Amino acid sequence: MQKVKLSENLEISRLTHGHWRALDWKLSEQELLKLTEQVVELGITTFDHADLYGNFECEKLFGKVLNLNKELRNEIQIVSKCGIKPLSNKFPNRQIGFYDYSFEHITSSAEKALRNFKTDYIDLFLLHRPSPFFDPEEVAKAFSHLIKSGKVLHFGVSNFTPQQFDMLNTFVEEPLVTNQVEISPYCLEHVDNGNLDFFLQKKIKPMAWSPLAGGKLMNPQTEKEHRIHETLRKIADELNVDSLDKIVYSWLLKHPSGIIPIIGSGKIERIKKAVASMDVSMNLEQWMEIYVAARGEKLP
Amino acid sequence: MQKVKLSENLEISRLTHGHWRALDWKLSEQELLKLTEQVVELGITTFDHADLYGNFECEKLFGKVLNLNKELRNEIQIVSKCGIKPLSNKFPNRQIGFYDYSFEHITSSAEKALRNFKTDYIDLFLLHRPSPFFDPEEVAKAFSHLIKSGKVLHFGVSNFTPQQFDMLNTFVEEPLVTNQVEISPYCLEHVDNGNLDFFLQKKIKPMAWSPLAGGKLMNPQTEKEHRIHETLRKIADELNVDSLDKIVYSWLLKHPSGIIPIIGSGKIERIKKAVASMDVSMNLEQWMEIYVAARGEKLP
Amino acid sequence: MQKVKLSENLEISRLTHGHWRALDWKLSEQELLKLTEQVVELGITTFDHADLYGNFECEKLFGKVLNLNKELRNEIQIVSKCGIKPLSNKFPNRQIGFYDYSFEHITSSAEKALRNFKTDYIDLFLLHRPSPFFDPEEVAKAFSHLIKSGKVLHFGVSNFTPQQFDMLNTFVEEPLVTNQVEISPYCLEHVDNGNLDFFLQKKIKPMAWSPLAGGKLMNPQTEKEHRIHETLRKIADELNVDSLDKIVYSWLLKHPSGIIPIIGSGKIERIKKAVASMDVSMNLEQWMEIYVAARGEKLP
Repeated sequence: MQKVKLSENLEISRLTHGHWRALDWKLSEQELLKLTEQVVELGITTFDHADLYGNFECEKLFGKVLNLNKELRNEIQIVSKCGIKPLSNKFPNRQIGFYDYSFEHITSSAEKALRNFKTDYIDLFLLHRPSPFFDPEEVAKAFSHLIKSGKVLHFGVSNFTPQQFDMLNTFVEEPLVTNQVEISPYCLEHVDNGNLDFFLQKKIKPMAWSPLAGGKLMNPQTEKEHRIHETLRKIADELNVDSLDKIVYSWLLKHPSGIIPIIGSGKIERIKKAVASMDVSMNLEQWMEIYVAARGEKLP
Repeated sequence: MQKVKLSENLEISRLTHGHWRALDWKLSEQELLKLTEQVVELGITTFDHADLYGNFECEKLFGKVLNLNKELRNEIQIVSKCGIKPLSNKFPNRQIGFYDYSFEHITSSAEKALRNFKTDYIDLFLLHRPSPFFDPEEVAKAFSHLIKSGKVLHFGVSNFTPQQFDMLNTFVEEPLVTNQVEISPYCLEHVDNGNLDFFLQKKIKPMAWSPLAGGKLMNPQTEKEHRIHETLRKIADELNVDSLDKIVYSWLLKHPSGIIPIIGSGKIERIKKAVASMDVSMNLEQWMEIYVAARGEKLP
Repeated sequence: MQKVKLSENLEISRLTHGHWRALDWKLSEQELLKLTEQVVELGITTFDHADLYGNFECEKLFGKVLNLNKELRNEIQIVSKCGIKPLSNKFPNRQIGFYDYSFEHITSSAEKALRNFKTDYIDLFLLHRPSPFFDPEEVAKAFSHLIKSGKVLHFGVSNFTPQQFDMLNTFVEEPLVTNQVEISPYCLEHVDNGNLDFFLQKKIKPMAWSPLAGGKLMNPQTEKEHRIHETLRKIADELNVDSLDKIVYSWLLKHPSGIIPIIGSGKIERIKKAVASMDVSMNLEQWMEIYVAARGEKLP
């Protein structure tokens, strides 16, 4: 599998495995170990987490898995995120879900992640969402502190606009290496808000969450979902491809900005389809047909 | 009271007094003198004006007040604005309200302000609103002319977008020192349009007009106003604070961009509440509760 | 007629002639030659084309005209565009209209234009519309290739946002010299999206397509069209100007960004009116009255 260089010292795999729904996979630690080994075998060496995934249990579960095979940690890159303080039974006094980018919260979240993963470094640590209350100097201090101590190797953001990215990038010692955003034929938000143009300009490779739109494109309900689904099926037929997953992943992989999809499945068969999508060769007109179906009206 | 450095040579007070509604205060010159002295006593040394406030009468009234106590001028900073040509009985031939940023209008407005205030310099002069008809080279020439003659010490803008600010800043000799915009829990426009991020990036301290949303948050009528009012009341109770004004000012003052609220009241008691708000210590969750109430839906 | 410098080595005329609807003019080659000679006589030396105008026939027609008077080519500047692949009976296998900015398509489009115009260089070649699938490095390579071979002298874009312009400009060897966008009292899109501010900041002179909004302002149907029409008529009366065309062109020419209107008429009388509009001296209030009518609500 192709590697992608996010910065001088950080290479991740072109496809990544996301643990957002890892608890829903209902796998035992041994089963998750086996899945992880198979995934790494396929060349997918990058694992996407966040503190709050699975009500704060996913990082821990993966830590236990890594503990079962001590070699694994050296073969993989761990991505995690912090900043969202959600309503949760774990924080009974909290009155609303909100965001916290204080020095204290960023550094303690990273340290908690180290304990959860039973590791001594996080490869890539992201701010989960932009906040209306954001002190870039304080954030930059937290990043510097964590880099100096070796606890975090690289930083990025998630769901930021171009301006928010640029703003924080002005303050940090080491440039931000990625912006993880939602991209799929179902969600064109970051095409429309200028983020993809910004990524091209700044040569930033985005990570894409929900590349399959949570299954909505496979089991369409709404008019929009049906419209996209039909087009995916048409292109799959033309290309003689046996699965719509492959068409969607191929659509993302073909884009010039170098989108890195996060595969959120716990089933090795579906992950293999994602890998196989790298062999699909869709032409420009087919790519555009999917885009136009996603957009819902023809191009001007 | 804390001072805020807007540029190498310009310090203003963290809270400022706004004369937008000064005629509505129905104060005699002596009464306004007394109020002004009390305000300065509190450490609020910066006074916000515009040519057209009070149908072009507010600058003159303040000039008469300054004339009654010749010491005052040396203790204060005067902010004024130009550029709006409104419909007014003073300009009976005008057919519409519009904006004028010609060399002639900018320079003659500044000179008129000097006569009105009976002073020989304006500390900070702002362009009141962005215009679709705007020649930045001509504006820059007017600024240079006024700075060279000592009539205006510093320039800024009001109600500009990040791009409009950046555009004009490319042409002016001395960097623009502020952008005065509407910010309150009622008006999140400049959070949503990227201006607060821009201010953080460029280290520009914004002035905030209508911080209390013209009383709408104290005497709520609409669903939105009630929603925000209830949250302000909840936080006031939690903090054992006796007035919602204090909560709103504290919300603005706490923001990392260094927002400088403009207090628009003619009652010394309300102004004292604003000053007292500097002692309120709201926590991040409380700040976010007000933001979420303002926004009208929970955070993603 | 005034010349406008778009870059060190490219001057075009302040007014330009657009061949978008050239087939609808129903002129013989001899008649179009005569019109072209008259237009050049008026000082309008720049001709705006695109590959797909007239279902891919307009470039060829103009090439035949240029062939009838070999002197003409040296007196004029040719602007053309590529990138849109429309549905057309000329491309029966195409399934949707889409955009193609591959190296191959850009270079072959330029070469086709040379054959169509029977010339060995294009003065200015534009990318017709921004695309969601856009590789700026590949585009930059195509531009360099065409410049090195002398086939295209200068490049620009059309209908791009400020960010898209900036993005591509980061990659190209020679800076982009213009952005051709729709501007008229009917279409304020590029006032509202920040493009006019961007043009002022970067000192880019925009070309304006559909300056008369396709006749909608002369023969109003909708409420908006009537509103603008009435205001144009009022200003025409005030200025004692005999045609609304002149008012609209004057409105565009007066703007500080240096808008270059594209005249789309095949009638020499209407083109003369456009030229005569350069003598109309509208004042700022009149300019603003038209803007406010276009906007549909008074200024804040």
